[in-house]
Amino acid sequence: MEFVTNEKLTIVGAAGMIGSNMAQTAIMMGLTNNVCLYDVFSPEGVAEEMRQCGFDHVNITATTDPEEAFKDAKYVISSGGAPRKDGMTREDLLAGNAAVAKELGENIKKYCPDVKHVVIIFNPADITGLVTLLYSGLKPNQVSTLAALDSSRLQSALAKHFGIAQYKVCNCSTYGGHGEQMAVFASPVTIDGTPLLDIIGTGKKVNGVELTAEEWEAMKKAVTQGGAAIIKLRGRSSFQSPSYMSVEMIAAAMGGKEFNWPVGCYVASEKYHHIMMAMPSRLTSDGVYTKIVSGTAEEMAALDQSYGHLCALRDQVIGMGVLPPVEKWNEINPNIN
Amino acid sequence: MEFVTNEKLTIVGAAGMIGSNMAQTAIMMGLTNNVCLYDVFSPEGVAEEMRQCGFDHVNITATTDPEEAFKDAKYVISSGGAPRKDGMTREDLLAGNAAVAKELGENIKKYCPDVKHVVIIFNPADITGLVTLLYSGLKPNQVSTLAALDSSRLQSALAKHFGIAQYKVCNCSTYGGHGEQMAVFASPVTIDGTPLLDIIGTGKKVNGVELTAEEWEAMKKAVTQGGAAIIKLRGRSSFQSPSYMSVEMIAAAMGGKEFNWPVGCYVASEKYHHIMMAMPSRLTSDGVYTKIVSGTAEEMAALDQSYGHLCALRDQVIGMGVLPPVEKWNEINPNIN
Repeated sequence: MEFVTNEKLTIVGAAGMIGSNMAQTAIMMGLTNNVCLYDVFSPEGVAEEMRQCGFDHVNITATTDPEEAFKDAKYVISSGGAPRKDGMTREDLLAGNAAVAKELGENIKKYCPDVKHVVIIFNPADITGLVTLLYSGLKPNQVSTLAALDSSRLQSALAKHFGIAQYKVCNCSTYGGHGEQMAVFASPVTIDGTPLLDIIGTGKKVNGVELTAEEWEAMKKAVTQGGAAIIKLRGRSSFQSPSYMSVEMIAAAMGGKEFNWPVGCYVASEKYHHIMMAMPSRLTSDGVYTKIVSGTAEEMAALDQSYGHLCALRDQVIGMGVLPPVEKWNEINPNIN
Repeated sequence: MEFVTNEKLTIVGAAGMIGSNMAQTAIMMGLTNNVCLYDVFSPEGVAEEMRQCGFDHVNITATTDPEEAFKDAKYVISSGGAPRKDGMTREDLLAGNAAVAKELGENIKKYCPDVKHVVIIFNPADITGLVTLLYSGLKPNQVSTLAALDSSRLQSALAKHFGIAQYKVCNCSTYGGHGEQMAVFASPVTIDGTPLLDIIGTGKKVNGVELTAEEWEAMKKAVTQGGAAIIKLRGRSSFQSPSYMSVEMIAAAMGGKEFNWPVGCYVASEKYHHIMMAMPSRLTSDGVYTKIVSGTAEEMAALDQSYGHLCALRDQVIGMGVLPPVEKWNEINPNIN
């Protein structure tokens, strides 16, 4: 069998719904023959299910010991937070998950400082990713967070609205926070070749369907609440889509198939800094790099607002003592300026 | 994107853990661009998760209406029974699931008599497959049941015992019933090239490890209780491995990758007849065909016993009135002699 790499991939939170799906997804994609499942609860049942799938060329280990889990890991994906319950916002999870992220970062620093890339998906991912980055001592381009689901939710919603195949809706992008305060960008989007901005509120139709300004506002709002919508529909938090998307991210970081969605990454521009957030970006075996973001004045204002929201969240974590003040970040991670 | 087929695949029980995994697995394997999710509970949440994975070339529909679900379906996989709970045997599920299988067969006959292949995996699959076959009016080679997991459990157990990679353990096969009374065959198995029969109780070592007759008996017993072991380990019934294996089966029936595990199929030999059970078999786009089974006298006796157990189960279902007596099967399905 051919694999993208033979290097060790450690899946954190592997006993859970997302983590166990990550394991199956990564193995099905043929990413590596060396998969380690780690959780505070034994992931041996998940490992055994994988073996019983007949994935017989993959060495699957399962452990509750962080040293065994992280030692020599070259790639890490972590869903290892507490799951989001009905009615909770992502921010409600902040306190507990920030502490989990700190421990993850410390484990990486201690056991696998030579790790190549880490993908963080537990909520609020912008914050948990940032905390992990700081305590891991890694370079900013080595840590990315899942930020694609809002964009794929927008793609699905637009495809349904216009009654067209989903692949005909291109460049869906939401930037900033992965939460209720995200900035939904219309300007890059095309609907079967027609720019979305030419359609919203203009009466212009695609496939015989128009999109009023009111409908667009409602759709943006629905997209920002997409996670809660899945909980209502399934009776449980989404797990297949975050798992799949995050494995696609680590695949890109391994040098596999390109990842075509926004990625949450550490941003150090003049305007936005000391933050992780969803940006137009490129994720390859060289790591994650931010591209310039552009949009209408209204879109840029929404992004500014989302950035402000994230800064407030970050400062809340600083206030909790989980992170030092921004000016001291360099002391715990010299790669952060 | 390339797909194995463009024909409609209907996944029954799609809102559940197994069914939702089947959907993701089938789409990831690129089986078809036409996937219909059906369940008595709305599978729209699962469909939406699939769309949010960015599987944007696949048309994914979700319905609770059997007519919409089965109309024009060319392939069906059903996990649509009640899940097995801790402490329950597969047979405990018999009554309820036999009725579910009857309804499934009737829906197939009514809405998609031109279906090409149906894979049944809800327990006890040998019985639910048989009931589905009879009421669907399909030919025996058009219906198969999941029977691979016991064999892959044996492969995993042997690989662990000898401390070797799983792919070096070949031809693991359990035949007859998929339950506590299955017949575990040692004679086809090789361990890193050495016949297992040359190892059991002989002191012969592979990778420095021997296998005593007592250890082999314990391993066989553990394999027959493999499903219960997963429940103990995960706190829930296995869902990833049955899902993955059954999607591999339908892939083979579509003309995709060959399926290399035993398959549960309708058997009409002189010795075993009017039954579905795991047999050495070949599953291709021509359907499922049984091969001759051979083994030691002891293995054949175990298979005879497993067959007897399945006949008793079948007769129980006949007694419940869900199936007519064997001699009248031909009246409800002229393809059965």
